[in-house]
Amino acid sequence: MNNFDFYNPVKILFGEGKINQLASEIPQNSVILVTYGGGSIKSNGVYEQVMSSLSSFKVFEFGGIEPNPRYETLMKAVDIIKANNVNFLLAVGGGSVLDGTKFIAAAAKFKGEAWDILRKGAKIEEGLPLGTILTLPATGSEMNSGGVITIGTTKEKLVFGSSHLFPKFSILDPTVTYSLPKNQLANGIVDAFVHTTEQYLTYPSNSPIQDRYAESILKTLIEIAPQVLNSPDDYQARANFMWSCTMALNGLIGAGVPTDWATHMIGHELTAFFGLDHGVTLAIVLPSLLREMKDDKREKLLQYGKNVWGIETGTEDNRIDEAIIRTVSFFNSLGVKTKLSAHGINGSQLAPIFERFQARQWKLGERKNITPNRIEIILKSAL
Amino acid sequence: MNNFDFYNPVKILFGEGKINQLASEIPQNSVILVTYGGGSIKSNGVYEQVMSSLSSFKVFEFGGIEPNPRYETLMKAVDIIKANNVNFLLAVGGGSVLDGTKFIAAAAKFKGEAWDILRKGAKIEEGLPLGTILTLPATGSEMNSGGVITIGTTKEKLVFGSSHLFPKFSILDPTVTYSLPKNQLANGIVDAFVHTTEQYLTYPSNSPIQDRYAESILKTLIEIAPQVLNSPDDYQARANFMWSCTMALNGLIGAGVPTDWATHMIGHELTAFFGLDHGVTLAIVLPSLLREMKDDKREKLLQYGKNVWGIETGTEDNRIDEAIIRTVSFFNSLGVKTKLSAHGINGSQLAPIFERFQARQWKLGERKNITPNRIEIILKSAL
Repeated sequence: MNNFDFYNPVKILFGEGKINQLASEIPQNSVILVTYGGGSIKSNGVYEQVMSSLSSFKVFEFGGIEPNPRYETLMKAVDIIKANNVNFLLAVGGGSVLDGTKFIAAAAKFKGEAWDILRKGAKIEEGLPLGTILTLPATGSEMNSGGVITIGTTKEKLVFGSSHLFPKFSILDPTVTYSLPKNQLANGIVDAFVHTTEQYLTYPSNSPIQDRYAESILKTLIEIAPQVLNSPDDYQARANFMWSCTMALNGLIGAGVPTDWATHMIGHELTAFFGLDHGVTLAIVLPSLLREMKDDKREKLLQYGKNVWGIETGTEDNRIDEAIIRTVSFFNSLGVKTKLSAHGINGSQLAPIFERFQARQWKLGERKNITPNRIEIILKSAL
Repeated sequence: MNNFDFYNPVKILFGEGKINQLASEIPQNSVILVTYGGGSIKSNGVYEQVMSSLSSFKVFEFGGIEPNPRYETLMKAVDIIKANNVNFLLAVGGGSVLDGTKFIAAAAKFKGEAWDILRKGAKIEEGLPLGTILTLPATGSEMNSGGVITIGTTKEKLVFGSSHLFPKFSILDPTVTYSLPKNQLANGIVDAFVHTTEQYLTYPSNSPIQDRYAESILKTLIEIAPQVLNSPDDYQARANFMWSCTMALNGLIGAGVPTDWATHMIGHELTAFFGLDHGVTLAIVLPSLLREMKDDKREKLLQYGKNVWGIETGTEDNRIDEAIIRTVSFFNSLGVKTKLSAHGINGSQLAPIFERFQARQWKLGERKNITPNRIEIILKSAL
């Protein structure tokens, strides 16, 4: 195990009916900005539940945070905050709304140009306090302190984070997911799966607790996926899905072990350039990346094949190939396609992405050896 | 999965050399009381490391916190705090020192008679801030907000807890465990193992993440126990042992699932009456309790046998018996005996314990059906 620091002060309120506890989690006399996305919370009853819980507070609203939330949009919320002395943020939505609201929390308190948080990695010294009500399990944003923001003008998806941006609380009520469309559920399963592999499919570091926890999440996602997709009101399936997603990215399985994150970094570019859903990009990049990095990840790929998929016979190379094939089949079984061409993207369209990687000279992965040239190989073999 | 709240704001600093970060985790100008036990920290170098890290602070000391820390002892520390305006506590030791220091933190701020915290479960409204440096992995006290205190005059071991008593930070450096005697390590392994079974060997609640995490801890403890006991300077074994113990009782595996805790409650009485080490009492009670409660715990005992011990053949009863036999063998392999008679305790000596259980009319376990009569059966079959 490597040395690590772990800190996660988010209070989780989990289960049906927990939105009723909302008001008691927010300091009295707060002036609240409720943030949300495209308005699905108005059709599924969550909006009304939230607003009636907050009747004793002064409340402003900011809707319209888009999937892959944009800097330009979020800064409008900062204006509302400053004009109205808002001192508490409540994000109601999925990962995009939660990530966006964390950025708003940081930008509202930032001395200087908030743009620098994304472009220059400027240090976040404080943030407005925030709480969340999660409506789409996927990103884990409800129990971590980071996010990903898109700058619309330059087609960049950039990460940020700070221990000042942990939600004070997150309410996870599985029943609010009943109305989600199937493709969003499928993308959420892929997202949680790949969050886990990013912290697991690296190289051995003698960390059996972390490895087994990661395998626990992967096996659970595989096991529950059919019910999650096909039984909209299966409370237990949705509850276990929700908790798996939170566990996949709350810092615990990555504490003390090497981590990769190349699939995410490459995937972000596919979203920024082609508008592909985040989960879709991960399903495209991961299998191809695992094939390219097979030698570096050999021991963990064999362990993954054995402990997650039960693959115990054949040569090492066969077993690794089989593990990757099973991964692809799993994504496909969710209705998520794993090839760029399935989304109408051909090789010539990749040129600007390759140029950007070359210009940045990124070296990704747990060994920092996924160079721009290897990223080209990975993406071309995912066509 | 059942509804739950989960909150754990303890910052963990894990790894060799982390004690060097101590001073930066404590607010400047703090007046610190360093608490410790019988003085082993003075022979293994930890005391010097701590004191030199704290050279810029005003520091008082309170040593001599005994295993199964006593109310009478701890209240002397409260006097020192009040006389010297101490405003930060640093516990350096194992679970007894940490539990005792949490009680000191609560008692120092308690309005009224601190005794009521233990005897009447009086609510703890605040606590002095505290940090910990863990020297003996076992209890998980480093990452939770509760403790167990003994009242010497009445031979009672009583639990207490409050979200105000979470350590601000806990430093876990596996190298400080190198000098521990074998029996303390063995007891620590049993303690972490039984913390896990208390939250796992109950009845199914459709919580695959929690079940698999629990199995992860149990399998890891079984796997690493020989190296932990026989290779005093095996860093990785000690690191994984330390992290397993923390994970076993930080609230995570018990969130959303039924929990038992009867083995602990019965074990506490054995310590209070006979002075047996805590881990020893758990190893005595657990197998006997599992046999007595076999029908109530049937599904989870079968799951435990299969997933932890690989027992897949035979009748259900055979498989359950085998799982319990394997558990006993595991404890014995650590040098921990699982019978009261091995500690010179015979049936007639149990009478006052039975009287106390009858007087309290305790109903223990995940179904609240472990009555005083069943506790008698459990303890008699552990003779």
